Amino acid sequence: MSTKKPKSSSLEKLLNQISGRWTMYILWILDNNGSLRFGELGREVAGISTKVLTERLRKLEAMGVVYRDYKATIPPEVTYGLTERGQELSRTLDPLCELASRWYDSP
Amino acid sequence: MSTKKPKSSSLEKLLNQISGRWTMYILWILDNNGSLRFGELGREVAGISTKVLTERLRKLEAMGVVYRDYKATIPPEVTYGLTERGQELSRTLDPLCELASRWYDSP
Repeated sequence: MSTKKPKSSSLEKLLNQISGRWTMYILWILDNNGSLRFGELGREVAGISTKVLTERLRKLEAMGVVYRDYKATIPPEVTYGLTERGQELSRTLDPLCELASRWYDSP
Repeated sequence: MSTKKPKSSSLEKLLNQISGRWTMYILWILDNNGSLRFGELGREVAGISTKVLTERLRKLEAMGVVYRDYKATIPPEVTYGLTERGQELSRTLDPLCELASRWYDSP
């Protein structure tokens, strides 16, 4: 790891933010499907409750990793997608994803 | 992130293993200092208790990321270091470390 001393254990902070249950899976779905409406996202992330999905999306939005687009149509249309920062995080996680898959997914 | 569907959310499992408090810092210290004795490691990871350091090292050992070398000298000598797997994890985390530092460490 970089020799620069992690001043404020920023890596620990980032890991804590993204290690919650479902978080990686939501990022993965948005990365592979582009922006999705709340209902679509809920169906893609099989098994997640509306409450938890709402919480995770709010957290990801607060991180600046996911954007929320609201259209005042009738009924209103709300879509979620990865911001540039979210796409950067996704790309950066790719090698870790490969490593985890090699280590933990039975062939 | 890789388009391969994360079969068993292996990435989530790995993130949960490495996101505990101090874990990244211990890996970072061993990566930068090579193998260390328990006491040396405890001093380097300022603020960690002996109990927590013991727990974290056991967990990292169980993951196959850290090795524990015991020499039956008098007094016995116990050193810890990164295994090949640990070094691979460290290298893979480098880009995430840089990203976290850019995002969260004030310049």
